[in-house]
Amino acid sequence: MSPAARGAPVSPAARGAAVSPAARLGDQHLARAALTYLAEPGDPALGVLLEIYEPAEVLAAIKAGTLPGPAPGGGDRPARRRALEAALGRWRIRLSWLPGDEHLTAMCRDRIRLVCPADPEWPGALDELGPARPYALWLDGHADLRLACARSVSMVGARAATGYGAHVAGEIAADLGERGWVIVSGGAYGIDAAAHRGALATGAVTIAVLACGVDYAYPAGHADLFAEIAEQGLLISEWPPGRQPARWRFLVRNRTIAALTCGTVIVEAGERSGALNTARHAAQLGKPLMAVPGPVTSAQSAGCHRIIREWGATCVTRADDIIEMLSPLGAADPPRRPAPAIAGAAPARDELDTASARVLDAFPVRGAAGTSTIAAEAGVDLDTVLRCLGLLAGSGFIERCDRGWRLRKPSSAC
Amino acid sequence: MSPAARGAPVSPAARGAAVSPAARLGDQHLARAALTYLAEPGDPALGVLLEIYEPAEVLAAIKAGTLPGPAPGGGDRPARRRALEAALGRWRIRLSWLPGDEHLTAMCRDRIRLVCPADPEWPGALDELGPARPYALWLDGHADLRLACARSVSMVGARAATGYGAHVAGEIAADLGERGWVIVSGGAYGIDAAAHRGALATGAVTIAVLACGVDYAYPAGHADLFAEIAEQGLLISEWPPGRQPARWRFLVRNRTIAALTCGTVIVEAGERSGALNTARHAAQLGKPLMAVPGPVTSAQSAGCHRIIREWGATCVTRADDIIEMLSPLGAADPPRRPAPAIAGAAPARDELDTASARVLDAFPVRGAAGTSTIAAEAGVDLDTVLRCLGLLAGSGFIERCDRGWRLRKPSSAC
Repeated sequence: MSPAARGAPVSPAARGAAVSPAARLGDQHLARAALTYLAEPGDPALGVLLEIYEPAEVLAAIKAGTLPGPAPGGGDRPARRRALEAALGRWRIRLSWLPGDEHLTAMCRDRIRLVCPADPEWPGALDELGPARPYALWLDGHADLRLACARSVSMVGARAATGYGAHVAGEIAADLGERGWVIVSGGAYGIDAAAHRGALATGAVTIAVLACGVDYAYPAGHADLFAEIAEQGLLISEWPPGRQPARWRFLVRNRTIAALTCGTVIVEAGERSGALNTARHAAQLGKPLMAVPGPVTSAQSAGCHRIIREWGATCVTRADDIIEMLSPLGAADPPRRPAPAIAGAAPARDELDTASARVLDAFPVRGAAGTSTIAAEAGVDLDTVLRCLGLLAGSGFIERCDRGWRLRKPSSAC
Repeated sequence: MSPAARGAPVSPAARGAAVSPAARLGDQHLARAALTYLAEPGDPALGVLLEIYEPAEVLAAIKAGTLPGPAPGGGDRPARRRALEAALGRWRIRLSWLPGDEHLTAMCRDRIRLVCPADPEWPGALDELGPARPYALWLDGHADLRLACARSVSMVGARAATGYGAHVAGEIAADLGERGWVIVSGGAYGIDAAAHRGALATGAVTIAVLACGVDYAYPAGHADLFAEIAEQGLLISEWPPGRQPARWRFLVRNRTIAALTCGTVIVEAGERSGALNTARHAAQLGKPLMAVPGPVTSAQSAGCHRIIREWGATCVTRADDIIEMLSPLGAADPPRRPAPAIAGAAPARDELDTASARVLDAFPVRGAAGTSTIAAEAGVDLDTVLRCLGLLAGSGFIERCDRGWRLRKPSSAC
């Protein structure tokens, strides 16, 4: 199934040669592309500079080692300026890593493209990160990022998932995919992979947010999975193509997973799982945080249980629970109708009123009983028992016989 | 182990011949004993009458079929009086079931005894039930009911428990018993039995609240279990000896389980489990309500997950979680001390500050790297990398070599 059929139209930039992505890389885009090489994502000093200066000015400042004259907007108090200039040093140190503009432009080929703040495809939800907002995102895939994120949920969890966790993640992701939700995860082994695969299996768009370049298959065992995701959904990263993963990059990446989506679901997480870091980001951003429980005897569910207990994460067990959290007014999904009642049908035992249920329970299993015996056994008065006997007989539960009343069994004789 | 050793001293009434229980049955106790024969527990009309009249007066009124003259306290509005007199009919119908006073007195023998409101052993928590308060309780066992309930928790759940549920209920009950908590449950198959047995195994007091007479073993397969509970803890019931169980009696009984204890834990409950009825009573009484999660693929955990999600039940996974809920200030249990730190020990990798962890992660797995390479890889400035290198070398993570720095491995050469 084409990704467009799942509500995530193909990005104009990815439609092919008619709109060349390379042609789009203006100065500010080139500068942001360069900044993804020089600075680690989430560096608040760079975030602040990008709120004051144009990206090309920031890049020029890094190269020059000094900020341009007094900044517009009054952001030039001397102490603050000194702190920001000091930060230039940690980006300068990577200047030798910087490809030339032609190389940067050439990098945007086939499905790979750069999406920057204010671009039509930029997901506005990322702006909630403030100065920690990504400088830019590298994408590999056809789907439109902004539209995909509008109806998306993060599903992350333990790499060392159990069979139970992988099964549940795959099932729920497939159910969500069937109902038009985009699954966002981290492309790791275990829960992440099960979630991506569940979504892929239903033809849904899924997004892997990587902690390395979108062309760098990590873990290597997921090369085929990433190829499938890029074909049907999106690989995205704040790091430039070619960049390797590192331990801290996963933690920095997690804020983006939480910020991109309407809510976050944790499926299996040990007490120190990185998934809890994503959970914390979701909570800090005020997004719905959910966790799937598991056996209390499983260490891989301990983190889920803890965030339910201590962080107020919602206990979810299936796609319906998650959709209810993400669309509180049910606007996104039509309410399910209860099964229609059959007109005139006798009530089931569970549907009897309390007194009738008590009277019915007071009947002997075998044989018959008189009205007053039944009333005493049920602990109700005679008026009540007579009313209930009529209802129960009319509903086919009991019948009259010579010795009073008995339970009705098709083949029994009084 | 004697029950007294677990903080539930033996009741004076149960100590044997020195204080004859029979000698204690005065008129009001005899009347309350009789009322347990005539009325189903929880009948609000009888509860109201017992707030207005002495028990012996109520019993006389049932026999006479009419209430005595204007009640003290202004409770004699004509309409209300008519409603209460009408209720007498449903108790009169059982007058033929009533044993004589000598028989009632004789019933209190060995360990069996009657405990009434205002008796020293009456658990004050039951008074929170208002007019639905038990008229009296029949007890079989040595433990003091009031003291036992002062530090108690209800643990109830599915009769058709899974192996997982029974295991977890038994483990948690045993842990709670070890720490001086009394387990209250319903004596049913499945979770109830596992909870009682877990407590018994540690020599703790456990209480089974029955929906039939304390001498009526239901289910019959639990006759041995009930004998053990009566020996080491208590069987209690609002119904008189000899009374059989009935479906509605379990629901009426559940309010007593919830009211007696400091909090209620549900371990496995299907969507329509009777345990959820106990849970609802606990919530309505404002007592802590807790549930143990399980696999979302298990129908027997569905009720637990639902009350966590929809009723705000606390997700608990072990005895510690439960004790924390029941003793919010930690008064009941000394806080656990963290493992003492070893003075002067090098920090573990997990304890490094963020910058040092990043610098350490930036090291090549094999071979060495120069300071500026490491700084670029880690994305930190030179001052920071120099500070971190010193700390990491001092902690034994890295070492200097001819080509810069390398990870320290005991047997490797640069």
